Amino acid sequence: MISPKKLFILPIVALLMIPFDSFSQRDYKLWLQYEKKNNPELVREYSSKISGIVSLENSESSKVALKELEVGLNDMLGKKIPVQSKIEGENLLVFGSKLSLDAEIQKKLSKDFEAINKDGFIIKTISHKNKKHIVITGKNDIAVLYGVFSFLRLVQTNKSIDNLNIVDSPKTNIRILNHWDNLDGTVERGYAGASLWNWQKLPEFIDQRYIDYARANASIGINGTVLTNVNANALILTPLYLEKVEALANVFRPYGIKVYLTARFSAPIEIGGLKTADPKDATVINWWKEKSKEIYKRIPDFGGFLVKANSEGQPGPQNYGRDHVDGANMLADAVAPFGGVVMWRAFVYSEHDASDRAKQAYSEFVPYDGRFKDNVIVQVKNGAIDFQPREPFHPMFGAMPKTPLMMEFQITQEYLGFSTHLVFLPKLFQEVLEADTYQKGKGSTVAKVVDGSLDNHKLTGIAGVSNIGSDINWTGHPFAQANWYGFGRLAWDPYLDAETIADEWIRSTFSNDENFIKPVKEMMMDSRETAVNYMTPLGLHHIMDTGHHYGPGPWVSDLGRPDWNPVYYHKADKNGIGFDRSKTGSNATSQYAPEVAKMYDNLATCPEKDLLWFHHVSWDYKLKNGRTLWDGMALKYQQGVDQVEEMVKTWNATEKYVDTERFKEVQMLLQIQLKEAKWWRDACLLYFQQYSGKQLPEGVEKPTQTLEHFKSLKFPFAPGN
Amino acid sequence: MISPKKLFILPIVALLMIPFDSFSQRDYKLWLQYEKKNNPELVREYSSKISGIVSLENSESSKVALKELEVGLNDMLGKKIPVQSKIEGENLLVFGSKLSLDAEIQKKLSKDFEAINKDGFIIKTISHKNKKHIVITGKNDIAVLYGVFSFLRLVQTNKSIDNLNIVDSPKTNIRILNHWDNLDGTVERGYAGASLWNWQKLPEFIDQRYIDYARANASIGINGTVLTNVNANALILTPLYLEKVEALANVFRPYGIKVYLTARFSAPIEIGGLKTADPKDATVINWWKEKSKEIYKRIPDFGGFLVKANSEGQPGPQNYGRDHVDGANMLADAVAPFGGVVMWRAFVYSEHDASDRAKQAYSEFVPYDGRFKDNVIVQVKNGAIDFQPREPFHPMFGAMPKTPLMMEFQITQEYLGFSTHLVFLPKLFQEVLEADTYQKGKGSTVAKVVDGSLDNHKLTGIAGVSNIGSDINWTGHPFAQANWYGFGRLAWDPYLDAETIADEWIRSTFSNDENFIKPVKEMMMDSRETAVNYMTPLGLHHIMDTGHHYGPGPWVSDLGRPDWNPVYYHKADKNGIGFDRSKTGSNATSQYAPEVAKMYDNLATCPEKDLLWFHHVSWDYKLKNGRTLWDGMALKYQQGVDQVEEMVKTWNATEKYVDTERFKEVQMLLQIQLKEAKWWRDACLLYFQQYSGKQLPEGVEKPTQTLEHFKSLKFPFAPGN
Repeated sequence: MISPKKLFILPIVALLMIPFDSFSQRDYKLWLQYEKKNNPELVREYSSKISGIVSLENSESSKVALKELEVGLNDMLGKKIPVQSKIEGENLLVFGSKLSLDAEIQKKLSKDFEAINKDGFIIKTISHKNKKHIVITGKNDIAVLYGVFSFLRLVQTNKSIDNLNIVDSPKTNIRILNHWDNLDGTVERGYAGASLWNWQKLPEFIDQRYIDYARANASIGINGTVLTNVNANALILTPLYLEKVEALANVFRPYGIKVYLTARFSAPIEIGGLKTADPKDATVINWWKEKSKEIYKRIPDFGGFLVKANSEGQPGPQNYGRDHVDGANMLADAVAPFGGVVMWRAFVYSEHDASDRAKQAYSEFVPYDGRFKDNVIVQVKNGAIDFQPREPFHPMFGAMPKTPLMMEFQITQEYLGFSTHLVFLPKLFQEVLEADTYQKGKGSTVAKVVDGSLDNHKLTGIAGVSNIGSDINWTGHPFAQANWYGFGRLAWDPYLDAETIADEWIRSTFSNDENFIKPVKEMMMDSRETAVNYMTPLGLHHIMDTGHHYGPGPWVSDLGRPDWNPVYYHKADKNGIGFDRSKTGSNATSQYAPEVAKMYDNLATCPEKDLLWFHHVSWDYKLKNGRTLWDGMALKYQQGVDQVEEMVKTWNATEKYVDTERFKEVQMLLQIQLKEAKWWRDACLLYFQQYSGKQLPEGVEKPTQTLEHFKSLKFPFAPGN
Repeated sequence: MISPKKLFILPIVALLMIPFDSFSQRDYKLWLQYEKKNNPELVREYSSKISGIVSLENSESSKVALKELEVGLNDMLGKKIPVQSKIEGENLLVFGSKLSLDAEIQKKLSKDFEAINKDGFIIKTISHKNKKHIVITGKNDIAVLYGVFSFLRLVQTNKSIDNLNIVDSPKTNIRILNHWDNLDGTVERGYAGASLWNWQKLPEFIDQRYIDYARANASIGINGTVLTNVNANALILTPLYLEKVEALANVFRPYGIKVYLTARFSAPIEIGGLKTADPKDATVINWWKEKSKEIYKRIPDFGGFLVKANSEGQPGPQNYGRDHVDGANMLADAVAPFGGVVMWRAFVYSEHDASDRAKQAYSEFVPYDGRFKDNVIVQVKNGAIDFQPREPFHPMFGAMPKTPLMMEFQITQEYLGFSTHLVFLPKLFQEVLEADTYQKGKGSTVAKVVDGSLDNHKLTGIAGVSNIGSDINWTGHPFAQANWYGFGRLAWDPYLDAETIADEWIRSTFSNDENFIKPVKEMMMDSRETAVNYMTPLGLHHIMDTGHHYGPGPWVSDLGRPDWNPVYYHKADKNGIGFDRSKTGSNATSQYAPEVAKMYDNLATCPEKDLLWFHHVSWDYKLKNGRTLWDGMALKYQQGVDQVEEMVKTWNATEKYVDTERFKEVQMLLQIQLKEAKWWRDACLLYFQQYSGKQLPEGVEKPTQTLEHFKSLKFPFAPGN
């Protein structure tokens, strides 16, 4: 905590710096700012290529696509571009799905149409009747909408629109947000205010936010949303709520976004009045069939169910002596007639299993491989523990070739500083997607498992646990918007580079000025490693304070379950620190392909970033840089703090490129991040020092508080808990 | 509930009607829209009188006043008005506190300065060195800020600024909002999203909302805010939170808004480690003294404490055999050295007292008259039960001449349709303030008690339970902003007319177009009576469903305490309906002055709007219009529904005067209000019909659902509960 004296200044500064006319709430607009171009040549250049807009269709989706083009282009080019329904004139921007195109143009694009899938689009400069035009098309009007947003992004980011020839298709089918939103308006692990869903005012009241939420998601290719928490409440499946869900589905439909719900496994008992929820019981099977029919009657394009079963106290098939396959397949049969899917989470770890928690999901699920119905996809977190700042990829990826696996990333920063720390997560996502499972030899990356190419699966998907709430800026931190954006872009193309994503986002959200982009992009690209450094360097994990996971709590050891205690994960003692998951230890490494297991097992080849995840090593262990483990760890913590100091400097230098409101917001948030980075460093080093018994090396600042002080800090109302 | 078929349309309509560029969020700007004037003459007229702005001071408050003038005038007149620090030129707008004025001008205004109090202001056109200028001044820079907002309102509402001679002072000292906000971010009886206070990010992060909240309040003269719920948590008094409260106080200070906190009476035990909270215990007395010192060290202008004690389970002095005076005076002594006050709530009713709940606050508090310390003010709800759509004024007003009483109004619509019903509350507030207590003969209005004039009290105040949350439009319903606005204006001047307030608000918030103002003002002025008609006509009260108070629940009779059950309040039976509080009944009427008691006791003189509050009458009782009570009641319910139908028509006709976003918002909300008005009518009439055994009269629509259906409706997640 920082001293009252220090504090006194800040509010006044903030107060005077923030202008009164900053009612614009720029940060509400996300990456769809459509800021007016201040470069006349550029405007002339774009205008010359877009003398008019031709909308060939009249579906709801084409209407929203047209409106987006009008708003976007008119705002960015500062003039009204005429709209027409026929191709008359030249340099027209023509958009419509395949069948709406004139036969001659269809023919011109036939090769391209063969190259794209259902959601893919074509943006191409063509010559038609000796006149040049830009055509945006796809096999249906949602694909066209994706193309429209992609075209707008070109203009947003100052790219050329000369002789365009873009043919792009998403590499996964289900690109979905998981909202851990409760019916009472709270959001589990939510750090951006209350739930977006105003259940009280639905179905009649359609908040403008629902529409802007759909626009933002469509603009990055997201095509699904699970409205409710995986720790589910059965009431969402009652008519009172289904009527409200239906209203949201109606709003999202034109944007190509399907609604999904979490299914509480015990719902047949809680709202169905049955005595059991046994997936083999005929009345239960029938109840879910009827419930599915009821839902699809209201929402013909309902996506399906996401299920957390027999995990952290949630009910499931095991309560009836059945297994996950029995449960998943029973629900799959209920939604199959309507084209629905079941996303079944693999996040399980039994309190009765004394072995390494990291091994349990694999141990339990891999034997099921090949037994799930075709419309079941197993949702696996990126790592085997729980959304840590860094985890090795989950060993299940590539280990169930006969089962579609979808990725579950966490966009909300449960373990990464809530909405006060600037951490650009696409770097983390990319690291996982690029990881090589070696399950089919070198190059068997996680991305290939997720996009289905490794094992030829048709059903594929990527889920992201949403960081969206009712804060005016949506995500609590203006830069957390980049994590929502980046998740969507990677769900569309798991092979995209995080730096490309950062570049697009900065340009669309803030500015195309290179003097702003370069330093800010660097800051974003380094930010994830920075957080790892000041929180959990060298493979440390799950040492956050318990329950709310806010701040450090390596000392916590009093929780009911051993695997809920930080001490279980770091195992610090006089001899050293780290969790031995090598063959000499829990042998979790054996769950990976031999090449990977070998690399992790061997201290010489185990990457130092994962060292303490896989090995318990002595405080004097020599790191590759020649430092002892203790010194190296201490210096990593210090480096994290130094890097945040750098971020503060970097941001302070951007003032003239950003609106005052967002500049001040980020500036204040970075101050909190700096304070908390120091808190992490001091608390962890003081705690581990008890075991290492060593002095802090040269260059590491002395803690200003005692370990007792840090242990005494309590946060009874930390959000999201 | 309305049928799925009906619903299907709405979202799509909403979707298509709301333009994509409606990112402006006009409703965030409240009544400070400062919309550009579209009448050139008017602009010329105003511009000619304001050739420049002269700011004579440099305090924080003058800085915010200057910024407000610049933003407001530049936006409304569409040009930049030069700012200078000296009076050079003519037709200047000069502002600064008394001492900053040139001696000659001070002399000119000496009479006016005598006429105003500490917070009063003067806006006057003067001739200085033969040049005309407009001067805005007061005895301090906060008073000047009030003058500045008052001047801006003249321009906002198209009033003339020729030969101005405005001398205005607030009639109460404490004009304060009570936020029932909990530390976990929820708001008790809150229907506009989560709490505004982001405790997690404070003290470092100053949300722009805190500043705009302060601006909005200062613009209507509100000068205090109680940040926390009266159902208090002692943790707010710990350093962790006081540091955050201090940051808010720093933001609010330049706007003249003092911060207050709720004091949990048992805090000395819960956070002080004491064994008791007995107000006579020396360690307890000392603990509160030290705690107060600690608070004032951080916040020198801290306002004081609001206390709910021995009420609805809250701890208090009675837990130790002491009384309210002992408790209040102990806290008063603690804050007295620093100029703090204690606002002690009179909202008490014992579960052990079998008598009429309406009598209990009076019975318990009136005997204390004269025993409270000078810095204690007793906070009394407007009625004796609990913020009903209509209640007779609280008998305590005027009954404690030796004790300052402050009014507690509820702005949040706990019993008035949450944030989905358009109900203009200043009509309700005015009805209460104009009520004549007769305690010192005719003309002893509640307003005179509240402004201290009846019994010559220096300490005076009006509190409003806030309807503000983190919804982008602040209050959930655009028209609920008018209740916040109207509360502030009436706190400043309890004699203001609701219609004047509505007129000001409509012009500042929406439009100066008479074609819009006239129908909308009528709609607002009738809206409160409309709600009374479809909820609780003829003096009915507290028949809302229990707990959340959402919708009708006249049948509820199973709650632990009799006085929590609607049946306790309406007492419907075969013979009739109503609560006999006359001398033949509970004799609550005897708590009023003889003239008032007589009027209420006598069926012939008791106003019919209060009939069933004071009398149990037969179903065949003849109303003044010749109808039987049953027929009259049924027709009142129907009238309420008809009036909402009218509101819908009225609003639909305003489309061309309002931005699409707010137009659609209100349109959708009115649909909910209409649906719920019918729900109220049908549920109540079906229920009471069981007792009256009579048919619905001609002109009352037949219910479309059964009583069982209405009784079966459950709302487990109704907000604010």
